[in-house]
Amino acid sequence: MDSTTPGTANLTDAQRIDCLRLIRSDNVGPRTFRSLVNHFGSARKALERLPELARRGGAARPGRICSEEDARAELAACGRLGVHLLAPGEDGYPPRLSELDDAPPLLGVRGVRDALMRPIIAIVGSRNASGAGLKFAGTLARDLGEAGFVIASGLARGIDAAAHRASVESGTVAVLAGGHDRIYPSEHQELLEALIAAGGAAISEMPLGHVPRAHDFPRRNRLISGVALGVVVIEAAHRSGSLITARIAAEQGREVFAVPGSPLDPRAAGTNDLIKQGATLTTEAADVINAVEPIMGRPLSLREPDDEPLASEPNSGDRARILDLLGPTPVLLDDLIRMAGTSPAIVRTVLLELELAGRLERHGGGLVSMI
Amino acid sequence: MDSTTPGTANLTDAQRIDCLRLIRSDNVGPRTFRSLVNHFGSARKALERLPELARRGGAARPGRICSEEDARAELAACGRLGVHLLAPGEDGYPPRLSELDDAPPLLGVRGVRDALMRPIIAIVGSRNASGAGLKFAGTLARDLGEAGFVIASGLARGIDAAAHRASVESGTVAVLAGGHDRIYPSEHQELLEALIAAGGAAISEMPLGHVPRAHDFPRRNRLISGVALGVVVIEAAHRSGSLITARIAAEQGREVFAVPGSPLDPRAAGTNDLIKQGATLTTEAADVINAVEPIMGRPLSLREPDDEPLASEPNSGDRARILDLLGPTPVLLDDLIRMAGTSPAIVRTVLLELELAGRLERHGGGLVSMI
Repeated sequence: MDSTTPGTANLTDAQRIDCLRLIRSDNVGPRTFRSLVNHFGSARKALERLPELARRGGAARPGRICSEEDARAELAACGRLGVHLLAPGEDGYPPRLSELDDAPPLLGVRGVRDALMRPIIAIVGSRNASGAGLKFAGTLARDLGEAGFVIASGLARGIDAAAHRASVESGTVAVLAGGHDRIYPSEHQELLEALIAAGGAAISEMPLGHVPRAHDFPRRNRLISGVALGVVVIEAAHRSGSLITARIAAEQGREVFAVPGSPLDPRAAGTNDLIKQGATLTTEAADVINAVEPIMGRPLSLREPDDEPLASEPNSGDRARILDLLGPTPVLLDDLIRMAGTSPAIVRTVLLELELAGRLERHGGGLVSMI
Repeated sequence: MDSTTPGTANLTDAQRIDCLRLIRSDNVGPRTFRSLVNHFGSARKALERLPELARRGGAARPGRICSEEDARAELAACGRLGVHLLAPGEDGYPPRLSELDDAPPLLGVRGVRDALMRPIIAIVGSRNASGAGLKFAGTLARDLGEAGFVIASGLARGIDAAAHRASVESGTVAVLAGGHDRIYPSEHQELLEALIAAGGAAISEMPLGHVPRAHDFPRRNRLISGVALGVVVIEAAHRSGSLITARIAAEQGREVFAVPGSPLDPRAAGTNDLIKQGATLTTEAADVINAVEPIMGRPLSLREPDDEPLASEPNSGDRARILDLLGPTPVLLDDLIRMAGTSPAIVRTVLLELELAGRLERHGGGLVSMI
């Protein structure tokens, strides 16, 4: 058990600095962070072993390790902006988010922490929404707010902004794709300040100064559904970003709601498809409330800290065999373990080394490939 | 086994006259017709016993029994209009319709019989449909027609007419609420002639000259779903007639399809509700085809001719006990049988007597009440 496990005591200042250094180091994502801390017992000890692991993984040049100085500078800058870097289990870290395998080890939180501890429903949809879609988003957000739910969304134009605006008074959370000082779109800075001033919050896992790019949005979308009991999709064309959020939400075990529309309206094609695939058809707040009420009292399914043990020292034969099995085509981790003819712990350790060396990519659904 | 059982040989002229006399006699509906023929062995023998049964049921005055002369006159008039009165099992009697408990013992068929023997999909919806709804009805009817399905509908204004018009070439069936010589609305007489000329058909269970009234439409709606593998509802407000058709279709074991719409469109309230209740969300012909294809090869579930035996002679104690249990509040037939403390056959016989005396009403779901 490490101190970032939800439900444990708060981090010490030194632990927070160590965690920040580890997650800001090259090739360390939330899942790798978790493997390392579980295996070595603390972020501090993992930091000490990073260079050796990356070298064993065949790193061409050593990855950058975030210095203590840089971490202290980021913490201080966060402090000036009113951003708190919180670990799972700390007050203000959304409880449902801490259930995820890839929950951010440190989440930048600005605003009123209570908004993040209450039951949350996410509302997402098209940026170029119709008047009817915008109106419905407002009505739904207002009704869910009156029923006691906080509304999460992505601060985008269209449906997102309509949902935030209608729930400023009752509580709303903006989930950012960039750093807290790089609001996108910039015209929504004012909306963000208003929703925070009224008791809401903004969250981001990215460092200050990070300008959001296209690939940051799908990654961010897992947080929109991750903080919520369920996600409502209002107006989404085929292959739109909101459908990615819906897919991730389903993978996370979140309820998926979709608002129907005419077959002749291309902005309803995605939501109608979601309903065909099993999403709950939603025409009013009661459809959402009836579906999430039974699960609100359900205890959080906390991550098992020891579900993926590492081996202390794979030998060079193990490494060679596993490298042979890997290529640019993603393979299932489970298949890899079976084909490698060695223990799961050794396979996971070799993959971790490769990841830290910047040579391995993890995809959704337990798939891995060489870069 | 009587000769009106599906799959048996065609009726003789004399049998057809007897069947027509029985179904056109007072207080004889399709279910009563079936009980009588099953019990007495033929329509002729049932006709002979009608006065006695009605008297035993306590008829204030004897109900009118259709004379042989009147029946011959109706047959002759039908002949002049090109209407054939067909029994279940005869060529041109829709095979799926013959599955129903309350299948018409004689169905008036005008047009091309082959259209009634092919796989049929019903399309129904609002009379005051939107432009989008009318357009979608046309597209769906055309696509289903091209896929080999005949389209059934009710010849009403709005969705019904759009569905018929788009399937004139591929085959469409108008299900009438009145007699074949009393087309409603009269402005659709021309559409009806066009769809018949192109290879379609019109059907009605009502006698010639019958002007359709409000209560005839729900009764007619069971035939729209009854001839079809499934019913597609396009645009239906809350509490609209199309929802009655959808409920009957579900009770008949037919597939129910509904076209979604915006929550802000009152014309989609009924269809969105149907989807919430389990109807298949439909945005294109493939949604319908994929759902009905597996059941198209399924053999018809023919009615069991002997599932409801009658007793030859209930005694007056039985009659009194059953009358005591009946009142204006509908009760379940099964409860009545249990409470009466006598055999199901005796209860059914007493109910038949009361029905023929015009004193009993049968409701859906096996409920009966005194009138």
